[in-house]
Amino acid sequence: MSRRSRDKQSWEVRASTLARNTHNLIRGIVENLQVEPNPNKELIALSVGDPTTFGNLNPPEQVLQSVRESIQWHTSRGYAPVTGHLEARQAVAEYSAHQGPISPENVILCSGCSHALELAITVLADSGQNVLVPRPGFMIYKTVAEGLGIRIKFYDLLPHKQWEVDLEDLESQIDDDTAAIVVINPSNPCGSVYRKEHLCDIINIASRNHIPIIADEIYEHFVFSGHEFVAMSALSQDVPILTCGGLTKRFLVPGWRMGWLIVHDRHNILGKEIVKGLHNVASKILGPCTLIQRALPSILKNTPQSFFDEVVLFIENQAKLAYEELRRVPGLRPIMPQGAMYMMIEIKMSMFPKFENELKFVERMVSEQSVFCLPGKCFCYPNYMRIVLTVPEDILREACQRISLFCKENITSREKMREFESSEMAVQKDTKVICEDIPTIA
Amino acid sequence: MSRRSRDKQSWEVRASTLARNTHNLIRGIVENLQVEPNPNKELIALSVGDPTTFGNLNPPEQVLQSVRESIQWHTSRGYAPVTGHLEARQAVAEYSAHQGPISPENVILCSGCSHALELAITVLADSGQNVLVPRPGFMIYKTVAEGLGIRIKFYDLLPHKQWEVDLEDLESQIDDDTAAIVVINPSNPCGSVYRKEHLCDIINIASRNHIPIIADEIYEHFVFSGHEFVAMSALSQDVPILTCGGLTKRFLVPGWRMGWLIVHDRHNILGKEIVKGLHNVASKILGPCTLIQRALPSILKNTPQSFFDEVVLFIENQAKLAYEELRRVPGLRPIMPQGAMYMMIEIKMSMFPKFENELKFVERMVSEQSVFCLPGKCFCYPNYMRIVLTVPEDILREACQRISLFCKENITSREKMREFESSEMAVQKDTKVICEDIPTIA
Ligand SMILES: Cc1ncc(COP(=O)(O)O)c(C=O)c1O
Ligand SMILES: Cc1ncc(COP(=O)(O)O)c(C=O)c1O
Repeated sequence: MSRRSRDKQSWEVRASTLARNTHNLIRGIVENLQVEPNPNKELIALSVGDPTTFGNLNPPEQVLQSVRESIQWHTSRGYAPVTGHLEARQAVAEYSAHQGPISPENVILCSGCSHALELAITVLADSGQNVLVPRPGFMIYKTVAEGLGIRIKFYDLLPHKQWEVDLEDLESQIDDDTAAIVVINPSNPCGSVYRKEHLCDIINIASRNHIPIIADEIYEHFVFSGHEFVAMSALSQDVPILTCGGLTKRFLVPGWRMGWLIVHDRHNILGKEIVKGLHNVASKILGPCTLIQRALPSILKNTPQSFFDEVVLFIENQAKLAYEELRRVPGLRPIMPQGAMYMMIEIKMSMFPKFENELKFVERMVSEQSVFCLPGKCFCYPNYMRIVLTVPEDILREACQRISLFCKENITSREKMREFESSEMAVQKDTKVICEDIPTIA
Repeated sequence: MSRRSRDKQSWEVRASTLARNTHNLIRGIVENLQVEPNPNKELIALSVGDPTTFGNLNPPEQVLQSVRESIQWHTSRGYAPVTGHLEARQAVAEYSAHQGPISPENVILCSGCSHALELAITVLADSGQNVLVPRPGFMIYKTVAEGLGIRIKFYDLLPHKQWEVDLEDLESQIDDDTAAIVVINPSNPCGSVYRKEHLCDIINIASRNHIPIIADEIYEHFVFSGHEFVAMSALSQDVPILTCGGLTKRFLVPGWRMGWLIVHDRHNILGKEIVKGLHNVASKILGPCTLIQRALPSILKNTPQSFFDEVVLFIENQAKLAYEELRRVPGLRPIMPQGAMYMMIEIKMSMFPKFENELKFVERMVSEQSVFCLPGKCFCYPNYMRIVLTVPEDILREACQRISLFCKENITSREKMREFESSEMAVQKDTKVICEDIPTIA
């Protein structure tokens, strides 16, 4: 008789341990925030990592046309093989050639990158084992792992070194129960893009300790000028790399839930067991929508490079805009991203002593300025907030102005702010304009 | 240190217990069969429960048009809420009104009915507990449960009572660790459709023993003339019913992976914990493709009843055809279905002593006649095979003839067959025609 055995005499239906231990960190935090916007200002949500929310970024016509054509074919309606249609897997293998040689058997089509990550984690790690993930970092790994008794352990990123991995910390976190290391590159929430050498340093640690890597590369190729994206699998000698990606961000179709997992295992370390395990677990829900699977070869081949270039250039310009605006704001320290779609901003909490923590800070910013940024806690990283850079330019500008206003109004005292201005801001040119912006100071 | 802790000195990556214990029963069996078709006859696969395989059954134009329109909207590309777009959940609630009153909060859109079943089982049952499922029955429940340490226990269906539940057996299988009872109605593989009274008997057992029901109603409304489909949730007083359904079969779009789970809990027995648990677990992969979600209201409202009627009538006629053909075949006993898309056929193995079991029987039928039926073992039910009724009429006819030929050629002896003919087949009219069909007898 199990611990949870029921008393048959009455109704008592409890949720399983798995269900009770499965949480979406962001949702949990956001739902508990007191976020009533200021009724006089329209809400600007800089919180949602969905580039399509505002309607300013759209997939290219070729992508939509590919799906329109797919509708005609009766094969776009039937069940696909568990790992996805062969043509679609072949197309992913070709599209991902920069990752190294890929055979379609090592590609599994998934229901979004989240599902790919779920497969990778649940197949590599057993209950009682742990998976190392970056802090700050996107927390889907926690959501899929903890219900199964798989522990999440953090390794630190270094905010003053463009969010590089603290290599010493990473290696020190590895223990006998470490089943995998997750690397997010380019990063959500940091927007960092790692140099080849840094990626090699991480791979060397994995190699020395014989730990496979889960490379979350859903933001692959999302890099600003002067930076280069290199796939981890292209650098690894022996370390098996499970690369997770998809259409979600690059093709601006997060809702389509088209992701994939690619197994790179040139030294045959994983053997057949892991690939078989991935197939087994994938067979629970039978992969992503076949309408999109059938369109995938055309989507991947026909989307013009100019489309990608334009989107990245737009985001880079947005990053520059936000960075320029926010670095002048007292009490904030934005960190210029190198890619992806986000920017992390340090909140110097000592300058806002009336807010207990960054959650209270972002809450109040909603109620005063109707601007909602995601608190660092969503990435297990307090004292920071993350903004999304994909909103339209005028909205981002307006949001930055409101953030600025909010900080100026809420910083400890006029005295303090003056102090700040004369020290840090003296180096900047147009301080005056900013001061004129301040109507009243609490 | 866990059981699986690694030796850091070398590579050794094992698949997790979950991965190793997760199996797709059908795939496992089918992949291990020796199924080389006869090169002189084109293969007829009566094995795949996919009504779209042969291209003769297609969704109505309205369904395709709904998706075409959905492509235009930018909201069909963004992330949806974890449980699905409200409009889509509202549409499912209305479409499912025959199940009882439903609020959209109690609807969760899923990636196919499989995903709905996975949610239901993993949220209701803990490792060490068990879920009761019908035998013979579709085995997705096993696939999603066993990797998590949730046991599957069987209750028997009665082949001589149109596959009704053996109520005594059902109640005797319930123990202190039983977390849920799965009922498949209409049934895969049996094609049975339960009378209201029989469903009430099942519900009463669940009620007495305080066990929630998971109603797999993916074949809802798929019933032949003279039979009636009644949703379990429409009959339940106190028993909480988690109904799993979707577009898959009725709208002929299995690949689209659009399913749903509806929580019926009129007496508030589940409390908030179960619904919250369902949301938590759903948040791992973020639901089905939004392109289909956005089209769902139009799909559910605009598909004409005549479309459904035609499909069901076609399948009913196919069932009659196959039944008439196969009941004359020596050594077989088809059971006429009342709905769904399948027919179970008993193989009187004693009349085919050269085949060790029904697996060997279906294997040989592939190599001799290029007709592939699914062995009963796929449904944990030996000595039977299942055929799919959705293939085109001429193909079904041809398949039946080949099955007949195969049986006649492989039955123990001419003597035995003569015996059979003069006894069982005497009741039938056109025995002669069948005999003429037999060119040689092994
Ligand atoms: C780093 C990272 N990985 C994975 C995902 C999930 O991607 P998908 O929507 O394809 O499941 C996200 C989404 O924001 C992400 O930021
Ligand atoms: C009884 C039953 N339940 C569930 C399913 C799975 O449905 P879906 O393809 O929507 O996941 C099937 C598919 O054949 C089935 O027969």
